[in-house]
Amino acid sequence: MKLYDYLPSGNSYKVRLILSYLGIKYEHILLDIHKGETRSEAFKDKNPVGQIPLLELSDGRRIAESNAILYFLAEGTPYWPMNSYDQAKALQWMFFEQYKHEPAIAVARFIRIYAMESRAGELETLMPRGEAALAVMEGHLADNLWFVGSGPTVADIALYAYTHVAGEGGFELTNYPNIIAWLDRFSDHPKHIRITDQPMS
Amino acid sequence: MKLYDYLPSGNSYKVRLILSYLGIKYEHILLDIHKGETRSEAFKDKNPVGQIPLLELSDGRRIAESNAILYFLAEGTPYWPMNSYDQAKALQWMFFEQYKHEPAIAVARFIRIYAMESRAGELETLMPRGEAALAVMEGHLADNLWFVGSGPTVADIALYAYTHVAGEGGFELTNYPNIIAWLDRFSDHPKHIRITDQPMS
Repeated sequence: MKLYDYLPSGNSYKVRLILSYLGIKYEHILLDIHKGETRSEAFKDKNPVGQIPLLELSDGRRIAESNAILYFLAEGTPYWPMNSYDQAKALQWMFFEQYKHEPAIAVARFIRIYAMESRAGELETLMPRGEAALAVMEGHLADNLWFVGSGPTVADIALYAYTHVAGEGGFELTNYPNIIAWLDRFSDHPKHIRITDQPMS
Repeated sequence: MKLYDYLPSGNSYKVRLILSYLGIKYEHILLDIHKGETRSEAFKDKNPVGQIPLLELSDGRRIAESNAILYFLAEGTPYWPMNSYDQAKALQWMFFEQYKHEPAIAVARFIRIYAMESRAGELETLMPRGEAALAVMEGHLADNLWFVGSGPTVADIALYAYTHVAGEGGFELTNYPNIIAWLDRFSDHPKHIRITDQPMS
């Protein structure tokens, strides 16, 4: 199994987290998004959308989209819920993550780290959108330890990836005490890894 | 089963399509997004994100996010693929739809129909993003009749919803002959309904 990856990417980090939880060994192929390595013709032959993460199976079949990869790896393990309703709720949170959360929080983080000169103007609309997404999470976590069911699932992995580095996007997480407590609970996992950890292969 | 809905919404139309395919009767509750009816406190008690579609089951449990609702309704039917890899590929296309396709094509359509005075400036970035998403679909459909496997699945339903009205967003679909052929194939379904059809309850 090969993972095409870029280490600071929260989307890729989701995949590294579940591979660590499940003890799956893989070949780690690092691409530099700033050098256009995910937009090369060679890479777009593998993923026409030109994005990491991309998982390549030993038979050459490939899966893109971080949350679809999470599903593929988690299905049949405790990280994918057991019944249809809880599965749909996990997907609900994962679609929320890709539609409401990541396009605000991950993009604000990207701009503050790499693109303040050219894209700072976008922050005016991104910051309230990110705060709104965090408020929805905070409301859920006021009454629940996890996003679905009684333990961490793909939904928590998907939401952890960019929430735990939301501070790098300019978001003040101390305004969200239930999120802080959930981040701590999540990172207590015995096979937790940090976003910057080089995977062992 | 109740569906909270707004008739012109492609995201809601996905749910109406699969309910029609499966012959499921439901109560149809129309909200007017332009009057803020999805942002009322009463509705946000049901869905804190303040969006339709929202599916409410007979026991009061609720599922938001169009593609999560599609999963819930399709699981165990021919519209959800049989094996893990094809399931992950269906989700890959559904996440592509919500991340790359809908935020460009559906938003361009919304602006052209309702918000040209206040938001026309956004079209400059939305149009090339929408064309890029259509190009990815066109490339896939050059070699495949459907997005996953040998018949329509949740992936086709999710992508059909806003692609078939992309013209209302200013996109010229005649530039994408494989998409045109797929739209025709899709709408040949004996239980097809149009986006503006009032469901029977």
